[in-house]
Amino acid sequence: MSELAGNVLVGQSGGPTSVINSSVAGIIAEALNHACIEEIYGALNGVLGILQEDLIDLAAESQQQIRALRHTPGAALGTCRYKLKKTQDFERVLEVFKAHNIRYFFYIGGNDSQDTADKISKLAQQQGYELRVIGVPKTIDNDLAVTDHCPGYGSAIKYLATAVREAACDNEAMGQGDLVQIVESMGRSAGWIAAGASLAKRRDHPHDPPHLILLPEIPFNQDKVIEDVRRVLKRERFCLIVVAEGLVDADGNYMAADAATDAFGHARLGGAGDALGEIIEANIPGVKVRVARPGLLQRAGAHSASKTDVDEAFLAGQAAVRAAIGGETDKMVTLLRGDGDHYTCETGLAPLSEIANGVKKLPRDWINEDNVSMNFQFLRYAQPLVQGEITLPYDSGVPVFARLDKVRIDKTLPPYET
Amino acid sequence: MSELAGNVLVGQSGGPTSVINSSVAGIIAEALNHACIEEIYGALNGVLGILQEDLIDLAAESQQQIRALRHTPGAALGTCRYKLKKTQDFERVLEVFKAHNIRYFFYIGGNDSQDTADKISKLAQQQGYELRVIGVPKTIDNDLAVTDHCPGYGSAIKYLATAVREAACDNEAMGQGDLVQIVESMGRSAGWIAAGASLAKRRDHPHDPPHLILLPEIPFNQDKVIEDVRRVLKRERFCLIVVAEGLVDADGNYMAADAATDAFGHARLGGAGDALGEIIEANIPGVKVRVARPGLLQRAGAHSASKTDVDEAFLAGQAAVRAAIGGETDKMVTLLRGDGDHYTCETGLAPLSEIANGVKKLPRDWINEDNVSMNFQFLRYAQPLVQGEITLPYDSGVPVFARLDKVRIDKTLPPYET
Repeated sequence: MSELAGNVLVGQSGGPTSVINSSVAGIIAEALNHACIEEIYGALNGVLGILQEDLIDLAAESQQQIRALRHTPGAALGTCRYKLKKTQDFERVLEVFKAHNIRYFFYIGGNDSQDTADKISKLAQQQGYELRVIGVPKTIDNDLAVTDHCPGYGSAIKYLATAVREAACDNEAMGQGDLVQIVESMGRSAGWIAAGASLAKRRDHPHDPPHLILLPEIPFNQDKVIEDVRRVLKRERFCLIVVAEGLVDADGNYMAADAATDAFGHARLGGAGDALGEIIEANIPGVKVRVARPGLLQRAGAHSASKTDVDEAFLAGQAAVRAAIGGETDKMVTLLRGDGDHYTCETGLAPLSEIANGVKKLPRDWINEDNVSMNFQFLRYAQPLVQGEITLPYDSGVPVFARLDKVRIDKTLPPYET
Repeated sequence: MSELAGNVLVGQSGGPTSVINSSVAGIIAEALNHACIEEIYGALNGVLGILQEDLIDLAAESQQQIRALRHTPGAALGTCRYKLKKTQDFERVLEVFKAHNIRYFFYIGGNDSQDTADKISKLAQQQGYELRVIGVPKTIDNDLAVTDHCPGYGSAIKYLATAVREAACDNEAMGQGDLVQIVESMGRSAGWIAAGASLAKRRDHPHDPPHLILLPEIPFNQDKVIEDVRRVLKRERFCLIVVAEGLVDADGNYMAADAATDAFGHARLGGAGDALGEIIEANIPGVKVRVARPGLLQRAGAHSASKTDVDEAFLAGQAAVRAAIGGETDKMVTLLRGDGDHYTCETGLAPLSEIANGVKKLPRDWINEDNVSMNFQFLRYAQPLVQGEITLPYDSGVPVFARLDKVRIDKTLPPYET
């Protein structure tokens, strides 16, 4: 394996998670082990920062701040939902890479981001510019192909399951046969997150909240849901429903009233909970509906992150560097679950193109026949991902997070219009 | 002081908090110290349980469960928003008390509940039935008169300040001059909770999020808010707004679209954030609004409770028992802040009638002249209330809460129609 000397560039893309910065910390920590890596740069706001040559010197950050990245939510380098489209954009990226002798590019993101990384990698190959591109998985949506699960997912569902168990204590105290609590979860096209709320149930207590989980995989059936709610209200005196923001009706239309779209053409959602609440109030006389929509607090809730998730995100960052140093390129780090009864997790590699073009669906046979709860296969899958708590530093009663100095690298190219 | 032998009855009322069960634990723990207390009963669902003679034997609960109450959200005895109205109701309460030799009644709740306790106490006096009634303050709204602050408030604002600081990390990563994040806080008629979000700012960083706090005390001024948002977007690239659910317009009408009322005639809210978001989107072209409405997760978030709050709630419960044993009645326990620079807190007593008829408003002069941020007087007041974290027991990655056995006391009276 030829040793490739040069600089590292790290970028973050798409929606942040509680642990995406832990992957940055893993990359930096591992990069320090390798003498062939000269400088460690960060791209501000993902590919946007590359196009605009907005690079920062990550080696200039204090070690305390890098350590603090392990528990800091958001995306410390900034992120974007900008999609490279024009050939010109990709050429500009390579121009910037060449100008700063970037030989290692680590891109932390979901499938749109891995697609971008793939294209950058291929263009570099075409141009004969030696570049090693390794993607690091990230998404609370847990929908990346090949990898067993995605960093960010475990913390998101730990947040949700905790919220549901706490809300249930409140609801149980208030419920007099007429209380319907709706918790709207994130999850645009798949029910991975909403399904995770089932971890709030105690083992062997199938009647524990959440009583109903409404997944995007199961088109909304009003009559059945109303019947389910009535039955649960009678049995439990309150009914706690987790509804994914991406719930669709029988025609495949989003239940949420307002469905604008983002730069990738994805519907921007929020409101499935309210829409559901109105339907229930209109159909069950006297019922009181309460809707909690924690929104992005689900993906930013670092104070209740899963230690397993934080550690795996860090591990994925380290593995990306090791793979690149070992000569790999055009791959994404994957998480591989061991076969044994006791949960273990190692990293692997998969071609970026496979990630870019695949989507991992919530297996239909992990959903119970009642369509509103998850079976043991899902629980066996999800339970290990939420294990362990982290200890955050607090100052004056509020968690303290990393704040990078973001020392800018001098620009050497003319400006670029995005 | 004559020693009064008899049984204790504890009830919880109104909306739960993260720490209302800690007061129950304090009452039980202290009651065990006094031989004149024979039995310790709980009323299920507050006064409703008393009317229906639904009493449970708290002495039959394991000590582990009572200890676990210290960190369990919700109201473990159940609660209600039922308001005693008829003379007949009050007479029934006394009938139940006499039937079970209740000589100590501890009622944990807000001002409606203290009003109820006051009326029960006065009727007992009229009838010559020796009864000691002590209220224990509880409300995340922090609006009880006389007491420096209310158990439940510190944990609610710690939850909110943490959420805001975390959301800000996410927003900062995503913001490109067009992102408006709205976090809707609880707080029906006063801005105490929304104001608490200001604890998310670092000391001496007035530009830290939350950038705007919209309080019920300041009628919504659309032109000013739009101007404020534009200014913040320019300066910070994102704008994080905390809006109280009880925000009103210039005519005093709630901004929330849907304003049904509860049993006490209070408006039931939810939606001020969405209403605000629509106004901002309509007035600032190209802006992206995200709304998080954690709803009752704010008052149920035991996993991020303030240790100070948990401890003070327990202390208030203990103090209620000591006061009653000492011969006091018709009083509520208050929290008294020491005069020194270092925060200290002791308990005091105030007549129930004073609590029932008073409301503590957020002082106008604690709000900065900009109307959207809090000054040092508020911070000095609120900061000590969120100090310290608690360590919850976790099982399989989710917090474990108390579950009472709720062993019923035999009914001895005929049923009662409520």
